[in-house]
Amino acid sequence: MLEAAQIIDGKKISTEIKEELKKKISGFLTVSDENHLDERFSRPPCLAVILVGDDPASHYYVSSKEKSCEAVGIKSIKKIMAVSISKEELLQQIAEFNKDDGIDGILLQLPLPDHLREFTQDIVDSISVDKDVDGLTTANLGRLLSNSKSAIHPCTPKGCMELLKRYGIKTEAKRVLVIGRSTLVGLPISILLNQANATVIMAHSRTANLEEECKNADIIVAAIGKPNYIQGSWLKPGAVVIDVGINAVMQVQADGSELKKIVGDVDFKTASEKASFITPVPGGVGLMTVAMLLSNTMELYLRKIS
Amino acid sequence: MLEAAQIIDGKKISTEIKEELKKKISGFLTVSDENHLDERFSRPPCLAVILVGDDPASHYYVSSKEKSCEAVGIKSIKKIMAVSISKEELLQQIAEFNKDDGIDGILLQLPLPDHLREFTQDIVDSISVDKDVDGLTTANLGRLLSNSKSAIHPCTPKGCMELLKRYGIKTEAKRVLVIGRSTLVGLPISILLNQANATVIMAHSRTANLEEECKNADIIVAAIGKPNYIQGSWLKPGAVVIDVGINAVMQVQADGSELKKIVGDVDFKTASEKASFITPVPGGVGLMTVAMLLSNTMELYLRKIS
Repeated sequence: MLEAAQIIDGKKISTEIKEELKKKISGFLTVSDENHLDERFSRPPCLAVILVGDDPASHYYVSSKEKSCEAVGIKSIKKIMAVSISKEELLQQIAEFNKDDGIDGILLQLPLPDHLREFTQDIVDSISVDKDVDGLTTANLGRLLSNSKSAIHPCTPKGCMELLKRYGIKTEAKRVLVIGRSTLVGLPISILLNQANATVIMAHSRTANLEEECKNADIIVAAIGKPNYIQGSWLKPGAVVIDVGINAVMQVQADGSELKKIVGDVDFKTASEKASFITPVPGGVGLMTVAMLLSNTMELYLRKIS
Repeated sequence: MLEAAQIIDGKKISTEIKEELKKKISGFLTVSDENHLDERFSRPPCLAVILVGDDPASHYYVSSKEKSCEAVGIKSIKKIMAVSISKEELLQQIAEFNKDDGIDGILLQLPLPDHLREFTQDIVDSISVDKDVDGLTTANLGRLLSNSKSAIHPCTPKGCMELLKRYGIKTEAKRVLVIGRSTLVGLPISILLNQANATVIMAHSRTANLEEECKNADIIVAAIGKPNYIQGSWLKPGAVVIDVGINAVMQVQADGSELKKIVGDVDFKTASEKASFITPVPGGVGLMTVAMLLSNTMELYLRKIS
């Protein structure tokens, strides 16, 4: 009988990464302080966050990003803009942050309000590629595809790669099934895994036999947004499961009441009996996304001052 | 017993495409001429080709592109630059063509001479994305990855897609094995096939069991540069084979002399006994590349005047 899968602990790893960043940043600033010399490190890294409108979930995410910045010593600037602003006003704000030498990374919290939604990519593309901390500009995606050193790896895909790396899970020559092909997650992670010498299978809603594809995969990355969709019985024994899904479901309690619960794209209970490694939801990939945002801010800061 | 594969005739299709382009262009110009009105169509599409140095193969390719342009009514401008030119001189020339409103597409013939080779991507990236007829700029690769309508599809990948389309070969839900992951061919074709709803498997030199991957693929796109590497015995019966390889090999003749011969990445003899459709080499994908160059020039022209 197989042992239960080892849990890939996103909380532990993201905490480690934040600790490393904190140490690095405080080290830089101390050196600069002691020497009164090294102007380059005379300020901490700085992330500017733009939030349009009053969506509670977006405000929650932004405030959680702010707290994480503070915890590691990254300065954060929050610009809240009214839900009614025009595209031009938003572009103007981004242009200001682009010009500001004190800002290393610019994050535009998505989604935008309805009247701006259709312009999302244009607006994102107005962020300078050298401050594109989320890695979502078209210019950065081109760098990613051409394996340029100047590419910023989008936060969630980068978080998945970091989890694999820190758990010593090799990707070279492995068959990796990436389920989902969004520009935000599925495609970038397929590219990163390809660059890491995996044989990547890009699956999606039109894939003919997903169960069969799962059975033949050494590593599965699920990013489809369907709660508990991938079954344990579909897995190759000993497979590695990276679950990117974050789905809210209502669960009936013993007393008949309903409780909101967050689950992944993979049925954790059955999958964890068959996999060798698995990320839980919550507590897996999700926590890595913010850690990678901090890491990308640091990377842009170091590029700027180097 | 299986019948022999149907040949996907690149010569026939590329000729058809050129005929269609010729008709379209001459139609535009006639309308403009008769009406003395429609300024937009007062000039034919125009492709500028830059060739650095005196490599005979490059000169041959460029002159063949020129002839193809002429045959369909596309104006071509050839700029030959000395092998010794500096990076700055080349960038200056590209900048001039970028500014010239009479030029729709700019093609920089590759490879560049040794002293410029390491700057190839930077130099290519100086071509305006709106004149990037080869689709090789980083900016265009970003557009390609994000499935933007403004993306120009690189010529060889586009040629492969066009062959599949014109032979009525469906890609939706098919398992397509793309062998090779170059930024020029393998990656863009993987992306285009993914956008066409295929389940794409990205294989390469580190793939563990290529033969097994071949056996499970409905369509194989080979772009690895290894003469006659993929064997007929590796194919699923009835598979479709798109052979992008162009390899020169020396073949011993009956009289003991050696003759240079061009072969693909797929062993045509054995593969054509097992496949349902196959592209020959020469006479397959290669001829499509120039046709797609003309088609891209036309596309940039139409965008410009629309």
